[in-house]
Amino acid sequence: MQRICVDMDDVMADTLAEEIRRYNQTFDEEVTPDDLVGRALSEIAPVDRRQQLRAFLHAEDFFEDLAVIPGSQEVLQQLSERFEIFIATQAMAVPNSLGPKYRWLQRHFPFIPPSNYVFCGNKSILRADYLIDDLPKNLLRFEGQGLLYTAPRNLAETGFVRVNNWAEVAAYFAAKQ
Amino acid sequence: MQRICVDMDDVMADTLAEEIRRYNQTFDEEVTPDDLVGRALSEIAPVDRRQQLRAFLHAEDFFEDLAVIPGSQEVLQQLSERFEIFIATQAMAVPNSLGPKYRWLQRHFPFIPPSNYVFCGNKSILRADYLIDDLPKNLLRFEGQGLLYTAPRNLAETGFVRVNNWAEVAAYFAAKQ
Repeated sequence: MQRICVDMDDVMADTLAEEIRRYNQTFDEEVTPDDLVGRALSEIAPVDRRQQLRAFLHAEDFFEDLAVIPGSQEVLQQLSERFEIFIATQAMAVPNSLGPKYRWLQRHFPFIPPSNYVFCGNKSILRADYLIDDLPKNLLRFEGQGLLYTAPRNLAETGFVRVNNWAEVAAYFAAKQ
Repeated sequence: MQRICVDMDDVMADTLAEEIRRYNQTFDEEVTPDDLVGRALSEIAPVDRRQQLRAFLHAEDFFEDLAVIPGSQEVLQQLSERFEIFIATQAMAVPNSLGPKYRWLQRHFPFIPPSNYVFCGNKSILRADYLIDDLPKNLLRFEGQGLLYTAPRNLAETGFVRVNNWAEVAAYFAAKQ
């Protein structure tokens, strides 16, 4: 059985939406994802707000209630019948996220056993056939086949197999096993 | 640069000593590691104590103050000059251990960056050249070269390259690069 690793932030969980929500609420702004094409929120924020922006991610409750990216539950449930599914998430830069991420995965993806969670930093450590991730640097370090999951920030990236949504993930794997 | 993954419990951290300490204290017993040759503490404990035994591991503070296995700091520091060192620890069966394990590693092994921590369940996910681990099942799932780190429970295991202590780990890697 082939193995698919799936990134969590901005692939399964709508981390960007929560980041924008907290930013807009704190600074009375109206940033939308369209403002973030090719750029991180930290890159468009004035310098004096960047520390606060980092603090959002380190807050105990940030990762607790993220919205689920549409389609991810249904498609991963279907794929889990034909593939080994592992969740590979960068959690080591924000250690406060470890517990909340664990609970979030259990709540929203109960069909994936915790033994298949991988909380890591450098994704070159993953032994898998596929990695679905929104960060080019993670795909470049991965030795299997990478799939770039579309996010505003990566829209201009070329040279990767791209999936724009979970329906496209399902279509990509429909012919594989 | 070749990559070595190192298990944490009973290889870097003396988890067994803390488990025995809490068991003896709670039940007024005098179990020693010698009583655990080929057997886990849960296997020699009377049935009515097993639930309490599991509760030890799930306590918030269990993984916070484990003793460091002698030699592990010095040898890993030396090896980190010639190898990529990753820490690969089973943390998903005891989610309360995630934060304490992170802090313990930072405190006792500050020369290993958090980006090289891997908190996982199934160790077949690791892409590395070597894995040092005290559990045969982890080595059997690993695709690189496994090294069985001696623990009372695994003394009778054969069929693995065995290292009895950190001096033997250093000797094993002295001729490699």
